[in-house]
Amino acid sequence: MRIARFSIDGNVAFGAVEDGPDGLVLDIIKGIPYADFELSGTKVPLSKVRLLPPVLPNKVVAIGRNYAEHAAELGNEVPDVPVAFFKPTTSVIGSGDAIEYPSFSNELHHEAELAVVIGRMCREVPRERVKDVIFGYTCANDVTARDAQKREKQWARAKGFDTSCPLGPWVETSLDAADVTIQCTVNGEQRQLGRTSEMVRSVEDLIVHITEAMTLLPGDVVLTGTPAGVGPLNVGDEVAVTIEGIGTLTNKVIKRG
Amino acid sequence: MRIARFSIDGNVAFGAVEDGPDGLVLDIIKGIPYADFELSGTKVPLSKVRLLPPVLPNKVVAIGRNYAEHAAELGNEVPDVPVAFFKPTTSVIGSGDAIEYPSFSNELHHEAELAVVIGRMCREVPRERVKDVIFGYTCANDVTARDAQKREKQWARAKGFDTSCPLGPWVETSLDAADVTIQCTVNGEQRQLGRTSEMVRSVEDLIVHITEAMTLLPGDVVLTGTPAGVGPLNVGDEVAVTIEGIGTLTNKVIKRG
Repeated sequence: MRIARFSIDGNVAFGAVEDGPDGLVLDIIKGIPYADFELSGTKVPLSKVRLLPPVLPNKVVAIGRNYAEHAAELGNEVPDVPVAFFKPTTSVIGSGDAIEYPSFSNELHHEAELAVVIGRMCREVPRERVKDVIFGYTCANDVTARDAQKREKQWARAKGFDTSCPLGPWVETSLDAADVTIQCTVNGEQRQLGRTSEMVRSVEDLIVHITEAMTLLPGDVVLTGTPAGVGPLNVGDEVAVTIEGIGTLTNKVIKRG
Repeated sequence: MRIARFSIDGNVAFGAVEDGPDGLVLDIIKGIPYADFELSGTKVPLSKVRLLPPVLPNKVVAIGRNYAEHAAELGNEVPDVPVAFFKPTTSVIGSGDAIEYPSFSNELHHEAELAVVIGRMCREVPRERVKDVIFGYTCANDVTARDAQKREKQWARAKGFDTSCPLGPWVETSLDAADVTIQCTVNGEQRQLGRTSEMVRSVEDLIVHITEAMTLLPGDVVLTGTPAGVGPLNVGDEVAVTIEGIGTLTNKVIKRG
């Protein structure tokens, strides 16, 4: 099932994305999708709503250098231990929202990533139980101020500025994410193309590693690293992340106003 | 004014800490302290409540290597640009709560720090307006798994594990924090002693730097770095951070259960 969060006429709701006679529709969800919920049967056309970030994370934990070719393209080795960092909730935007080019950078990069959405509060998750804590998957763009990342030893600003974490367009709850294509285009031109099977550490490995240290909450998001092909974003660009079996996350880059 | 958050008989409230005839009392606050609020006049003895973290941050932004002597004691230089990282909300505990020794570390360290509590949503704060966005100050312990910090390039696990961010005991809203003593004791023995005037970058500099990139929200917390003298914490230790004009944040270290 594909679960979107959206606003229409000032109201915010979750809805299941379904095919309708005239395009995609949203069947409004009663309750919240992490617990038991029902579909209301009330449907609104997707074209009439504004998509919001499909989850409201308490935290976003991201992993760096998890595709060997990408680590190499930036002159880095694949690390012995996963490189884990946070993106703050103030960085999260949805599909269709604008990425604001921050004033402290002159080198913004796209990084297309598979995002894991957590469904249950969990800590110290054993490898074989990881599937039980995953609610679903969405597309992410780990937008990075590459120049600031090089200058600043920790990446809070470089990867945590406002609008640096587009998520969407919705959460797919029934995907086998072990080997799907992940693609990034800028203005329709392909920049990144990889398969999730190329990850150095699997989703299972990453969730074990993260929850060894910290509790994950329903709605928390884990970004799993980006394949090779990262490159610049400029004001006016439209960047799209497409993951097979999920959909496309599209954002335009604007000047911060 | 000193504002605490606490629970009593299963209810959670904010209260102003005042002197009473038999010790400190809490005057329960009507409303929330970041907006307009009134004191109810209903008072409960501090000894009868459980203190909670005095704020519910959306994010905690922390700064590394902001005291020259501390940077030197770990063999680091004072960085050209402040080292900014996040601690997740799942790491926040209050005074009296236990620090749980994490399984992935054998070298836990205390780091006593002045914590700035933000009172207003803000971004790109000009230096001369910083005072307007500060709600008050509290004590923090930026508990660090030093071995993991050395092994892992980014510090999400080393400084973000559950219970690694004690905050409290309360927020002091009328402190001039420019030159106060900051002290850490372990089992009553002094380990760290510094003055906030020794910071490489002032609170004003740090808030300008952080908000250049990201929005801070009411209740967000900025940790301002630790003075020299960091050292090990072991199971059974009682660690106390005292800041002149605020109070003492006390936590015991236990084995994770």
